[in-house]
Amino acid sequence: MRWVLPEYIQDALPAEAAKLEDLRRRLLDAFRVNGYQLVAPPLLEYLESLLTGAGQDLQLKTLKLVDQLSGRTMGVRADITPQVARIDAHLLNRKGVARLCYCGSVAHAVPSSLTATREPLQLGAEIYGHAGLEADAEVIRLLAESLQTAGVGTSRIDLGHVGLFKALASKAGLLPEREEALFDCLQAKDLPGLRELLRDVSDEVSRALLALPTLYGGADVLTKAREILPNDVEIMTALGELEQLAAELADLPISFDLADLRGYHYHSGVVFAAYGGRSPVALALGGRYDSVGRAFGRGRPATGFSLDLRELAAQVADAVLVGGVLASPTAEPGFKEAVARLRAEGENVTIELPGHEGTWREAGCDRHLVLRGGAWQVEPLQGE
Amino acid sequence: MRWVLPEYIQDALPAEAAKLEDLRRRLLDAFRVNGYQLVAPPLLEYLESLLTGAGQDLQLKTLKLVDQLSGRTMGVRADITPQVARIDAHLLNRKGVARLCYCGSVAHAVPSSLTATREPLQLGAEIYGHAGLEADAEVIRLLAESLQTAGVGTSRIDLGHVGLFKALASKAGLLPEREEALFDCLQAKDLPGLRELLRDVSDEVSRALLALPTLYGGADVLTKAREILPNDVEIMTALGELEQLAAELADLPISFDLADLRGYHYHSGVVFAAYGGRSPVALALGGRYDSVGRAFGRGRPATGFSLDLRELAAQVADAVLVGGVLASPTAEPGFKEAVARLRAEGENVTIELPGHEGTWREAGCDRHLVLRGGAWQVEPLQGE
Repeated sequence: MRWVLPEYIQDALPAEAAKLEDLRRRLLDAFRVNGYQLVAPPLLEYLESLLTGAGQDLQLKTLKLVDQLSGRTMGVRADITPQVARIDAHLLNRKGVARLCYCGSVAHAVPSSLTATREPLQLGAEIYGHAGLEADAEVIRLLAESLQTAGVGTSRIDLGHVGLFKALASKAGLLPEREEALFDCLQAKDLPGLRELLRDVSDEVSRALLALPTLYGGADVLTKAREILPNDVEIMTALGELEQLAAELADLPISFDLADLRGYHYHSGVVFAAYGGRSPVALALGGRYDSVGRAFGRGRPATGFSLDLRELAAQVADAVLVGGVLASPTAEPGFKEAVARLRAEGENVTIELPGHEGTWREAGCDRHLVLRGGAWQVEPLQGE
Repeated sequence: MRWVLPEYIQDALPAEAAKLEDLRRRLLDAFRVNGYQLVAPPLLEYLESLLTGAGQDLQLKTLKLVDQLSGRTMGVRADITPQVARIDAHLLNRKGVARLCYCGSVAHAVPSSLTATREPLQLGAEIYGHAGLEADAEVIRLLAESLQTAGVGTSRIDLGHVGLFKALASKAGLLPEREEALFDCLQAKDLPGLRELLRDVSDEVSRALLALPTLYGGADVLTKAREILPNDVEIMTALGELEQLAAELADLPISFDLADLRGYHYHSGVVFAAYGGRSPVALALGGRYDSVGRAFGRGRPATGFSLDLRELAAQVADAVLVGGVLASPTAEPGFKEAVARLRAEGENVTIELPGHEGTWREAGCDRHLVLRGGAWQVEPLQGE
């Protein structure tokens, strides 16, 4: 069967493709009117530059191939965010704040979950060159507006802060491999695994790390965190940032999830996950990733979000494809002009080719162009 | 230098990315009002399906990688047309005519020429299920309209016919490898090489093949071809088709190039190349490829064209990116509403973040929002 696609890889047929195109345009337009400029980095880069500043998880997700021109290893991008950081750092080289956005396909060597695609259509927006919480607040608002524009809405935005885990891991004094294992256990909320890893760690830090997965929910999470977590300057700063951000976004459905570390490998501050529609998983992820620019040799602060347009589209009804006008060519006067006029108005007009079989509905037409009393008119197609 | 891209691979920075997005939308909209439905096949497929019905040239252009889930070889698509033929044959499975279009990135292992990119943004339109010249005429008209819509225009459309070479090669009775070599020599217009290959071939056929590269230009080419080429039914049918097509497209700048075989490996009938703008090379290529559907097990006739949006964009002036409105947040009444109103009108409004450095022009702003006598107004930004 020559036409079977690899697992977790799909075609978008007309109804889905039209929906993706419509969402793409609406979201990129929303970014544009908010001052975000579009960039389009390539699908393929040398592996070295694709993985700069990114972590182990991106390494495992990236498909590799040999560049026949240089003999070097290239990767198919698995994430566009580090590419945009590279563009900000080396190509635009602006002194001031840069707002950038993008939309393109990425490929994953293995799917992120049993329901994920290996070919997400990644769309996102980023602010470079501003370290303040105002920038984080702006991208979170833009995300909420994007979900609104998509017709999906935002049911919840969970805030977290990578600084909490980093401070606790550093206090725990673990070797890098064990810190990695600790991270995996926290993500999996694997308490026995956590206890085992924290055997030789001080009671205070161990208690705090074990408590992290319980720190999710409404505003009282921050109060609870101040009681449970060590009174450390980094930790208190992180909690203060979360409090301030939540206050600035009081009109949005903000909650907290202090063990959420999905972007840990390149994120460095506030992180967030947005939920909406009927999706049980987050539709968009984002946060601060000041370290990526640094890895490219120009340490610009950065914050932004991205989402998979295919997943977002799954929350939206398919586009309606039947609604076109069938026009059967004739030498009658005014035919061509009537077709051109309808098309200029945005109507989809399909010209009948001789010997067409199949139904017109299948071809997207439910009306036709007819000459009545000397005037060209659009009437419903009967009997289909 | 971690940020250097592989050769023949580029980023699209804001001015180019905005232009590509604008062209993409305008051309896909033109396809839509002409009744073409958008599809989006994946970047990655098993090599077997990517190369079905395609020739050696696509094999050499396709980057290969191992699918970690199946252990099979996948390819990064180098051409979307065969993917769309697969969709028509196996997924849509329509009885009647299907009009489909697409726009997406493809990757080439090696560049097609010294000025080509290895990552074209391929955009195209195809008609499946109609064998008549009416379908070829429709796609050629759509191509001319597309170049018009892009603001480039069409300076020339060269018609050719793969049937001429196929008939002559079959009369020459060459082994497949030598037919391949003959094809290469014709493409390179390498007359000594051609003569060498045709040493043992009959005078009539040899003369005809040597004459093919001279058969280009206006309508008299067809008259000349009837004199020079053998009076064979296949050859006369091909010439008749070209004549009929040229008559139907008399309002377009049609000419002929009977040695043009660029799509020979999967094309099967009329082929065409469109020129426009200041480009010395063809901006779009197309033709009939009835054999691709057959290779997928459902022999649907097909005709269409494709172009590289990056190459087309090179013929168009860059998008103007400066024209946004700067808005400095304030507690004055009506500020947020004024920003929202401007954005709803399609204006790009950038909110000033505290401590912004650099120029506003760099950030795309040449005007700002100010409160004058109780009303919010947009005024030019001074001194930048």
